[in-house]
Amino acid sequence: MKIFVTGGAGFIGSNLVDALLNESHEVTVYDRLTTGRVEFLSAAAEHPRFRMIEADLLDADRLTAAVAGHDAVVHLAANADVRFGWSHPRRDVRQNVEATQNVLEAMRLNDVARLVFSSTGSVYGECPTIPTPEDAPFPRQTSLYGASKAAAEGLISAYAEATPISATRFRFVSILGPRYTHGHVIDFVARLLVDPTTLRVLGDGTQRKSYLHVSDCVAAIIARLPEDPGDEVINLGVDGYCEISESVGWIAKRMGVDPRIDYAGGDRGWVGDNPFIYLDASHMRTHGWQPKYTIQAAVEDTVDWLLANESVLEAAIIDD
Amino acid sequence: MKIFVTGGAGFIGSNLVDALLNESHEVTVYDRLTTGRVEFLSAAAEHPRFRMIEADLLDADRLTAAVAGHDAVVHLAANADVRFGWSHPRRDVRQNVEATQNVLEAMRLNDVARLVFSSTGSVYGECPTIPTPEDAPFPRQTSLYGASKAAAEGLISAYAEATPISATRFRFVSILGPRYTHGHVIDFVARLLVDPTTLRVLGDGTQRKSYLHVSDCVAAIIARLPEDPGDEVINLGVDGYCEISESVGWIAKRMGVDPRIDYAGGDRGWVGDNPFIYLDASHMRTHGWQPKYTIQAAVEDTVDWLLANESVLEAAIIDD
Repeated sequence: MKIFVTGGAGFIGSNLVDALLNESHEVTVYDRLTTGRVEFLSAAAEHPRFRMIEADLLDADRLTAAVAGHDAVVHLAANADVRFGWSHPRRDVRQNVEATQNVLEAMRLNDVARLVFSSTGSVYGECPTIPTPEDAPFPRQTSLYGASKAAAEGLISAYAEATPISATRFRFVSILGPRYTHGHVIDFVARLLVDPTTLRVLGDGTQRKSYLHVSDCVAAIIARLPEDPGDEVINLGVDGYCEISESVGWIAKRMGVDPRIDYAGGDRGWVGDNPFIYLDASHMRTHGWQPKYTIQAAVEDTVDWLLANESVLEAAIIDD
Repeated sequence: MKIFVTGGAGFIGSNLVDALLNESHEVTVYDRLTTGRVEFLSAAAEHPRFRMIEADLLDADRLTAAVAGHDAVVHLAANADVRFGWSHPRRDVRQNVEATQNVLEAMRLNDVARLVFSSTGSVYGECPTIPTPEDAPFPRQTSLYGASKAAAEGLISAYAEATPISATRFRFVSILGPRYTHGHVIDFVARLLVDPTTLRVLGDGTQRKSYLHVSDCVAAIIARLPEDPGDEVINLGVDGYCEISESVGWIAKRMGVDPRIDYAGGDRGWVGDNPFIYLDASHMRTHGWQPKYTIQAAVEDTVDWLLANESVLEAAIIDD
């Protein structure tokens, strides 16, 4: 297949691109390289079936021209900054809602029918049903990120209803693994490198989160890509969760440090932080998918990769 | 209270404005007068506590300046064209999502905390639970209109989570009554005036819809306006529904005509038309609200008003 990957230079995107090229697909990456990193595509770039377009999804004309001739679009590009959404409150709508409509219009105008979309467990807000199934009660949004991803999902469904577009909307837990560049694991690793004696952690350490390794995420995307589901929604996550305090312990041990942990207190890390995320991923299991990494193994693999990739860590320290 | 009404020159808006002025509130209408009509505010315009600003919600600077100093915002302005959404697929996102974020930002920047929003039963898509309660299963959107209103609701909830904004999100069935300017009743009345012998009706006539009279809608808005609910969602509708064929019968009888009805066929009027809308409005009843009009009485009152207001009907005929 000829596959168009938005955000293909990013964390999940570049892992997907490598896997697609390995499976003999042709791949076009469309990425504006702000959070995406060209070095994540250094292996892909050697490949004759690979093509890179450095451009913005908000440039609808450029995007529409670029999408022409592809069999499928995997739309991963997004503003994925849940925590700092309120520093620039219009960014989520622009980059997650308008950009997604640009992708949908580009597909509609070019008769490209297959779409895989990366949504998030954040669309459930603080769901009372845990583990949370895809048909959980009508959610109340608690973050601009969740609201904007839910909005993008709604647009996708409306297009799937009225056009030939056939969509899979994956709702991910947090993803870990090689090329991970932002989130609490990099934050902790970067700060423990600077000061291995003390680590300040937001909340009281009891927030419960679920994580998935990027290779398990990519395997699910590739499994559904050749299908024609009309409009399906699929949770992706492991069968369980950890407390932040556990995850901090795994990270410190893997780094060989033993910091004192200062908890900032409160039952959540920031406004809009969901203190308990655990998705029911039984739907995807009916398609034969099974995650290979436990949460602990995913955290440890991420720490190992970060320690071997100082440039990513340095960027995290500067950002902090 | 000093109340800011977006879309205040429209159908629901102008009815609300008259009621608010009667209750001694100060009212600012912000309306760009494209679907809104200045003549709907001819009585209000005589009032010393009334102020009109003719401007666009997409002009964020103008809006932000205008919102300053108000106690509450009732945000009614929207692109409410469900049926023709696909003729201009970006309009719903612009006018319902971006415009709503502009309202929210204007409120946040001016410390205006109270918001009442007009959402729609269309946000439920085709819900399997009927009558549909507010906590129906996570919906699958079927129209750009429903998707954009659901997106606006999500943004409102995210703002309510992180800012002092306290919101009531009303989900309306279709509203009828004086100053009604678009929808199937005006469509049928206008066409029966041109040709009283035959009426073509989309679908097979068995689509089941629920309607509410605008005075009952306005009463609900005014009842919740002084409250501080944090973030609440309330369905508004009567306790029942009618078939389109029944509604056609009431309209014809009220007009004194006896047309042959040609049904176009199919179980719905157009792509994204929900063939069965009936909302569970028991939540609003717990606040002592009770609709005064039956569906039939609301349809008949609308026909009477249309026949007495030829200019609105003429516009509908030209649009057709």
